[in-house]
Amino acid sequence: MSLKTLFASRAGRMKASEIRELLKLLNRPGILSFAGGIPDPALFPAEAFRAATARALADDAVGQSLQYSTSEGNPRLRAWIASYMTKIGAPCSEENILITSGSQQALDYLGKLFLSPNDTALVGWPTYLGALGAFNAYEPHYDRLDPSDNRSPATLAEAATAAGGRLKFSYVTPDFSNPTGMTLTKAQREALIDQADALDIAILEDSAYYALRFDGDDVLPILALEIARKGSIEACRTVYCGSFSKTLAPGLRVGWVCAAQPVISQLVLIKQAGDLHSATLNQAVVAEIAETSLDTHLPKLRAHYAKRRDTMLDALQRYMPPGVSWTKPEGGMFVWMTLPKGHDGADLLATALETQNIAFVPGSAFFPDGSGRNTLRLNFSSPNETQIEEGMRRLGLLLTA
Amino acid sequence: MSLKTLFASRAGRMKASEIRELLKLLNRPGILSFAGGIPDPALFPAEAFRAATARALADDAVGQSLQYSTSEGNPRLRAWIASYMTKIGAPCSEENILITSGSQQALDYLGKLFLSPNDTALVGWPTYLGALGAFNAYEPHYDRLDPSDNRSPATLAEAATAAGGRLKFSYVTPDFSNPTGMTLTKAQREALIDQADALDIAILEDSAYYALRFDGDDVLPILALEIARKGSIEACRTVYCGSFSKTLAPGLRVGWVCAAQPVISQLVLIKQAGDLHSATLNQAVVAEIAETSLDTHLPKLRAHYAKRRDTMLDALQRYMPPGVSWTKPEGGMFVWMTLPKGHDGADLLATALETQNIAFVPGSAFFPDGSGRNTLRLNFSSPNETQIEEGMRRLGLLLTA
Repeated sequence: MSLKTLFASRAGRMKASEIRELLKLLNRPGILSFAGGIPDPALFPAEAFRAATARALADDAVGQSLQYSTSEGNPRLRAWIASYMTKIGAPCSEENILITSGSQQALDYLGKLFLSPNDTALVGWPTYLGALGAFNAYEPHYDRLDPSDNRSPATLAEAATAAGGRLKFSYVTPDFSNPTGMTLTKAQREALIDQADALDIAILEDSAYYALRFDGDDVLPILALEIARKGSIEACRTVYCGSFSKTLAPGLRVGWVCAAQPVISQLVLIKQAGDLHSATLNQAVVAEIAETSLDTHLPKLRAHYAKRRDTMLDALQRYMPPGVSWTKPEGGMFVWMTLPKGHDGADLLATALETQNIAFVPGSAFFPDGSGRNTLRLNFSSPNETQIEEGMRRLGLLLTA
Repeated sequence: MSLKTLFASRAGRMKASEIRELLKLLNRPGILSFAGGIPDPALFPAEAFRAATARALADDAVGQSLQYSTSEGNPRLRAWIASYMTKIGAPCSEENILITSGSQQALDYLGKLFLSPNDTALVGWPTYLGALGAFNAYEPHYDRLDPSDNRSPATLAEAATAAGGRLKFSYVTPDFSNPTGMTLTKAQREALIDQADALDIAILEDSAYYALRFDGDDVLPILALEIARKGSIEACRTVYCGSFSKTLAPGLRVGWVCAAQPVISQLVLIKQAGDLHSATLNQAVVAEIAETSLDTHLPKLRAHYAKRRDTMLDALQRYMPPGVSWTKPEGGMFVWMTLPKGHDGADLLATALETQNIAFVPGSAFFPDGSGRNTLRLNFSSPNETQIEEGMRRLGLLLTA
């Protein structure tokens, strides 16, 4: 007896990734891993978490902190986020905010909101692997989102129709992108709004790394640029996803969506049906820390990761052979490497694990069509400076061999 | 500009319930509400939560408690649940357990796993409103699950085919059901297994209230009965959903699924794509309390709610006019009332709010087709004994008027 024959057709799109399986083997001793995408736990503001949790569980608060709450989310946290969004250029109110269990859940719910089977989503080539995972459940097609694409809106729309559905949204990671580390310029963001206007589609702006800028000038969020153009968030097609996972800690699973009210209202229904609400205690704790100590925490975080990025870029400069190129991110957690044509990131990972005891993610994992085989993603937020220096030395040996 | 034209077809199935909107008005002073379905916060084991949280956030644990973790869930919690499931008659291992963000998320993910549009789900008539909400996102049809149904499996399967899909599962709340308070007998459970075997469909056993039995004898879970019949959980079609929301506190959002490994593996992929994992801290805290103090906490809970149920049943006996009948639950949180034909629960609620300042949920909300208009659900876990006595007196006045 197997229930597999009863699974919905979408289950066929949700397969275990070979790479994820491979990366499960990374716990072996002595390995230098640049494969993860996780924050350095030494940076979690432990004392702030202890204080905020004690406060949420005090006699006068515990009954509420452990009880059911509303699907929209904690009013105090929503108000803080609305004021934060306003501060970064996107004026809005609490009614434009939904709290989600991390931004991964926002991506799942947005896929659920917009995608019928055979609809098309425009995504980066490469793009965030977790977004493809979330959207795949709704059985879309993917087409290439590229600021320098010279296909006309009509051509893009026709391709979506030919695929059996409609073009629904473009999904963008504009700031220190996972996986490339690259940031879209203001002109590129404006062009994306023009394109979405022409196509009459939504823009999903996934800004998980926005607060992790080490140098260079802030670029306004796409949502901010669109509000500036159209006067109000209610006139905007951009749906912004934010997260506390990179700035406070990921283990609480607290993120948010900021968008026009009709979008938020429908997402609230999806959330209510999906998990009722995000954990009450976690939202209260994050609200407390956001209000009291996030501002003093962020500069420490930026300085810490900036040093690791510098160490990585410096080591790459010294150890990489000619023909290898890489991005120079102004923030975030990742450097993206392009190898000479003919190299295969997956083969290279197997050799790297075997001969150098180092790991990274083959870049093809981030392409909807599995292309980009000569690319790879290097993380600099988990390993320390010594490990980065030694790891890049070994990667150099591997690529020179 | 409205993004509504871009919403997927499933959005049409996810509408704000009129009743939920009505119940939002329940914060007015002095109202006696029997509409909720929430635990009494006075019963949350606050001290245990403080101790467990302090431990999870101690220096030697905080880095792990706030970090990303695995989609399957905390190994210690999975092991505890596997041993609990074994204890209640369903022998299994940690590999048969997935941690979810409450059992509501389990229902969402199970809908996602099994339902393609136009597939049919068999559900109680009435059934848990939140299950209909979760499943609706996947655009199924519903047919009536009834232990005394004398339609043949062939007839049921034909109806599903005529509806444009396949029969995928029966969804059952066997213990002190929300909304009816009723418990299925062993014979009825065995009959459901026979039916599912004949139809070759899954059984979703939603057992959120299982631990809240006040009196009467335990009835084995459907999963336990099926394992007894077939020798191993791996041979079973029953997928069991459990929750800590009713036994510890709902605000942590920790529940679980227990099923054959191929089902768990596919649910892990859905979870990974859906929200990566349930909050790390919350799982660590629940594991600690489950291991240390849940066993001593449960008897207090049962005694407390039993007293409220007794108060309600006693008051109903005294105040209800002839022609009104109600269930006598052996546990859980709800009594289900049937009024003489011609009464309308929704109209009655409007009058109840206006003239008696009391509230309840009109029963038609729990029927997929909106039938059952002469029924209503009364909650006895939130109001205290004095409120129950006074509320039932007022309900009696209303029904006698």
